[in-house]
Amino acid sequence: MSTRVRILGTGLIGTSVGLALSRQGYDVTLWDPSPTAMGLARDLGAGRLATAADDAPGAEPEVVVVAAPPDVAGAVVAESLSRWPHAVVTDVASVKSAVLQTVRASGSDLSRYVGSHPMAGRERSGAVAARSDLFDGRAWVVVPHDGADPAAVTLVARLATDAGAALVTQMSPQAHDDAVAAVSHLPQLAASLVAAQLRGMSQEAVEIAGQGLRDVTRIAASEPGLWTQILAGNAASVRDVLVRLQGDLSRVVEALDQVAAGGSEGALEVLARTISNGNAGHALIPGKHGAVPTAYGIVSVVVPDTPGNLARLLVDVGDIGVNLEDLRLDHGLGQPFGIAEVAVVPSAAESLAAELVRRGWRLHG
Amino acid sequence: MSTRVRILGTGLIGTSVGLALSRQGYDVTLWDPSPTAMGLARDLGAGRLATAADDAPGAEPEVVVVAAPPDVAGAVVAESLSRWPHAVVTDVASVKSAVLQTVRASGSDLSRYVGSHPMAGRERSGAVAARSDLFDGRAWVVVPHDGADPAAVTLVARLATDAGAALVTQMSPQAHDDAVAAVSHLPQLAASLVAAQLRGMSQEAVEIAGQGLRDVTRIAASEPGLWTQILAGNAASVRDVLVRLQGDLSRVVEALDQVAAGGSEGALEVLARTISNGNAGHALIPGKHGAVPTAYGIVSVVVPDTPGNLARLLVDVGDIGVNLEDLRLDHGLGQPFGIAEVAVVPSAAESLAAELVRRGWRLHG
Repeated sequence: MSTRVRILGTGLIGTSVGLALSRQGYDVTLWDPSPTAMGLARDLGAGRLATAADDAPGAEPEVVVVAAPPDVAGAVVAESLSRWPHAVVTDVASVKSAVLQTVRASGSDLSRYVGSHPMAGRERSGAVAARSDLFDGRAWVVVPHDGADPAAVTLVARLATDAGAALVTQMSPQAHDDAVAAVSHLPQLAASLVAAQLRGMSQEAVEIAGQGLRDVTRIAASEPGLWTQILAGNAASVRDVLVRLQGDLSRVVEALDQVAAGGSEGALEVLARTISNGNAGHALIPGKHGAVPTAYGIVSVVVPDTPGNLARLLVDVGDIGVNLEDLRLDHGLGQPFGIAEVAVVPSAAESLAAELVRRGWRLHG
Repeated sequence: MSTRVRILGTGLIGTSVGLALSRQGYDVTLWDPSPTAMGLARDLGAGRLATAADDAPGAEPEVVVVAAPPDVAGAVVAESLSRWPHAVVTDVASVKSAVLQTVRASGSDLSRYVGSHPMAGRERSGAVAARSDLFDGRAWVVVPHDGADPAAVTLVARLATDAGAALVTQMSPQAHDDAVAAVSHLPQLAASLVAAQLRGMSQEAVEIAGQGLRDVTRIAASEPGLWTQILAGNAASVRDVLVRLQGDLSRVVEALDQVAAGGSEGALEVLARTISNGNAGHALIPGKHGAVPTAYGIVSVVVPDTPGNLARLLVDVGDIGVNLEDLRLDHGLGQPFGIAEVAVVPSAAESLAAELVRRGWRLHG
């Protein structure tokens, strides 16, 4: 028998969970306070609508996924624990201590509750933006509190894996909230605050923006209602990381004041350190397969810009017996050729380079 | 006769200008204090090396493009104005008032100088990262000062258009510096400061990051040396926008303090307004001078992460008879496969996709 999952809330995340689990053969039933949203999720293939028969003894959900907004998630979890006395209940809210606190205050059977947080989202909301592959390759944090039933934890972790998550990791509620304050809530606020400075600028001035501004502010299109709940639900942790940011920002402003007033070596050093500290932080963000980027050996090869050359290069790399770890192509339209940056394990780079030259390839740099 | 252009400085921007103008039939001569960088730019097709004959009467450059680092650009412009007494001289530095000030202080013939700023760049530097299409679809700001010869302004604007810029706009030096403080220098600092907060976090905590952090911090990989010069060269304007940011940030911290202490309606309103102000600013960013210089058709193909598959895919693309315009390889977190985004001319995308599926490839999304 396939696992019976009830999804409460058919917005972006709930519907995407339904699509992903239905794809894996779970028996998914849906509910949402909005019949329209619920019907849309059903039509999209996220599951079937829950009926009274789905609550009959023996047919009840084994797992309940609460995909409600963060400020009501705790109440819905508590309600679900009492309504389905044998089900494991999880939620997907972006903040975890606040939800746990509400559930605990309700006096519910806490052993069957295991919070979780899929690290996926989009700037768009609602069932219509849902995707069955929303969680593919993403992290999903399982957040057991003290006293959670280990079997329930295992069940929620399996659900995350089945939904497509590539990295299912466990953290305590506090560790989770501190981590997302830095890797999710801070970037959101930075994007919003940077974008907000554009208001009142002339159109011609904003129009000259390049790709940097677009990348930094992409998530500034996020929904105010949802984000107010997320930030308020993680107020203490977000405040801590913002206070650190304030300190760094003050030092930059002070340095710019000094430069504007005629400059000083120390001020330039502060500016340089600000950028290089950013380099260091950026280098910690995982690249391929979630690992901290390994320093691959890079062999840069000139690829004549006629059909088939890149394929020929990769066939040669394969023939030489080296595994291609990554590939980056630099390919100017009007340029007479492109540069292929072939990433391989460091120990293989030198012999690969030599063998490619022997086969007639020209290296770059 | 084709226009004679001298490019002084063959880094990323100078070499890209050379590639783009050579493509348009300009007679481009190159110079760089580093013979290696200069030779590389020549080999890439950015132009030919300048010789004494290129400075003979009648053969002198008509336009000189100073593509030197921001802190020396002014001096090189002044030198060029005196060395080539009939040439129009422009520069491509990211800051304009500071460069103009240096040129003015030198007592040069200011009428032949017209500052400019192509709004394009990459996280990588040097001739090796240059592309002939770097400016395609981008904005290029022409920055005439009071007293610039209108014919010189027209010439520089034409050069920008010929280099591929989609939007050639004119601003005063001060208006330019204020605009880039907000649309370029602020995003850089925000990216760097956000990334810097990741230092000292556990690997497991950084590992759960989603796409939002990656986008916000992409440009945090930028070069400290170059950015120190840019920020110092625009200290007053950057300081002004940072002070506004400090004010907004303080209000958020205060609101979070109130929420953590038990909450208040007013505090939630501040958080909501922060995000919605970001929405409003984000909505001002035009979509048209965007990420992809040419609108290719993208076919996303799942590539099993075992040796030889990418080569096999490219061989198939070649067999199908479609020219690969660009290729991006995307490894998901912990995923056993990668996604290859194959860029082809739009009209070929649909049939390529169908043919790849027929050959057993799985498409993504």
